[in-house]
Amino acid sequence: MLLTNHAPSPTAQLIDGKAFAAGLVAEIAVDVAAMVAAHGIRPGLAVVLVGDDPASAIYVRSKIRKTEAAGMASFAHRLPASASRQDVLAVIDALNRDPAVHGILVQLPLPPQIDATTVLDAIDPSKDVDGFHIVNAGKLANGRTDGMVPCTPLGCLMLLKAELGSLAGLHAVIIGCSNIVGKPMARLLLREKCTVVLTHQKTQDVAAEARRADIVVVAAGRPGLVRRDWIKPGATVIDVGINRIQTADGPKIVGDVAFDEVSAVAGRITPVPGGIGPMTIACLLRNTVEAAREHIGRMPRSAA
Amino acid sequence: MLLTNHAPSPTAQLIDGKAFAAGLVAEIAVDVAAMVAAHGIRPGLAVVLVGDDPASAIYVRSKIRKTEAAGMASFAHRLPASASRQDVLAVIDALNRDPAVHGILVQLPLPPQIDATTVLDAIDPSKDVDGFHIVNAGKLANGRTDGMVPCTPLGCLMLLKAELGSLAGLHAVIIGCSNIVGKPMARLLLREKCTVVLTHQKTQDVAAEARRADIVVVAAGRPGLVRRDWIKPGATVIDVGINRIQTADGPKIVGDVAFDEVSAVAGRITPVPGGIGPMTIACLLRNTVEAAREHIGRMPRSAA
Repeated sequence: MLLTNHAPSPTAQLIDGKAFAAGLVAEIAVDVAAMVAAHGIRPGLAVVLVGDDPASAIYVRSKIRKTEAAGMASFAHRLPASASRQDVLAVIDALNRDPAVHGILVQLPLPPQIDATTVLDAIDPSKDVDGFHIVNAGKLANGRTDGMVPCTPLGCLMLLKAELGSLAGLHAVIIGCSNIVGKPMARLLLREKCTVVLTHQKTQDVAAEARRADIVVVAAGRPGLVRRDWIKPGATVIDVGINRIQTADGPKIVGDVAFDEVSAVAGRITPVPGGIGPMTIACLLRNTVEAAREHIGRMPRSAA
Repeated sequence: MLLTNHAPSPTAQLIDGKAFAAGLVAEIAVDVAAMVAAHGIRPGLAVVLVGDDPASAIYVRSKIRKTEAAGMASFAHRLPASASRQDVLAVIDALNRDPAVHGILVQLPLPPQIDATTVLDAIDPSKDVDGFHIVNAGKLANGRTDGMVPCTPLGCLMLLKAELGSLAGLHAVIIGCSNIVGKPMARLLLREKCTVVLTHQKTQDVAAEARRADIVVVAAGRPGLVRRDWIKPGATVIDVGINRIQTADGPKIVGDVAFDEVSAVAGRITPVPGGIGPMTIACLLRNTVEAAREHIGRMPRSAA
């Protein structure tokens, strides 16, 4: 192997989200089989897809396939792009009352005539396996552990704890401030006693904030945003970005981190693909199994 | 007047919360009179006091007096220290259904046999004028503007906006991480597009964080915690602390900020007393009037 001065040798340890997720899914499959054997209850996930966005259809198919591969039941509900808010709410209402459905996922985005907040808040919080309901957001915001946690931040947290152990006292900087990733990630890391800085488009110097971090979580949707000089040597970098870009070799999936240069300075880093992506769907299955477990816990003792 | 080298002359501009609160209460009284005249509806605040903690009794009396001084109706419900959770929940349920009650406040702390979270979550979120219900926490956490905001952070925010105008892009550090002040304060300042750092007992170097701040909000309950060298020259300092200490001149109320030395370096500072304290109760009245306004908005048009 030829080493040159021009190519910095990567020092960062790769965080293998794909392998971690596979282990998690294997454990989930064991739990599912045990629940079926002990209680005659098969955890069930309902997925609601409105309209015919091709990317959404691919995501939904993938979620259903992995749900079934773990031995769980899946229920797909497809509505036309012309569906009204009432149409969607009627489906949600039926799923809320269906005892075979333990988790409900509404694939976003919804068509423009349907307000996503209204739909998400109509889901029974105990079946809200995406963790987007305002009650679950509030529980997490107040540091409570009895709510559903959004899947992507939960996946990031699992990897961080597996890699670093206790996170208490670590300085964490989150780049990107969405309700789906950045904000719940901040709440989770605060619950773990990190000192958390949530940066966004009005932050004066995001790079300067990032340079102070022991943990950097990036969910900005901007390929190559985070450069080598944004990262403190030895820091742990979690890249949530999934961006499709064109290269000379054809289309490619990249994260929000300039991987080659950042991996020369970071202590640990998640790759894209194979980092957080597989963790998100594994956490969706986990949340559904937890919802089923709660459901069993609420059953009359004779039935449970 | 004799000036010496030993006494640094204060440079910080005082933020007069007492005067601001008085103006706010005067506006509220006008709004109340208008609602009575236009709709025959007098905003009403119910206060629930369980047990006989002397400090709580003083707070409740003060809240009732100021509620009535603004022309609003007040309803006091006192339960013995031996009351059960069911007793308290029965009172909450009756207040939730009472159309004359627009706001419900449960004075904390509750006796040890009663779980505060269960009680607070039983309040109708639209009557939760303290803003502690999990639904209101979730709305604020997700940056929504349709929930109730806790009174003390709301009071801090009003003063900050009155003093500084837009807060977008400012670096804010909050010292103290309670569900009542620190966490909702962080959510509010994030909603205003500040870059927010919420520090707590595990934060490695709180002083270093504070020194980077344009805005410091202190709610730690530790007299004199924040010293001169914690503050960037010109920064705005909001002192939420209310601590009773003994001095050679007798008992005294002080904040969490070493006022004399910090006021020599800060740009603006709230005093204790006369800063945030009066704002908290003014915001309680404001939240109750807003709840009544929402109630009127939900009335059938003929009645409204």
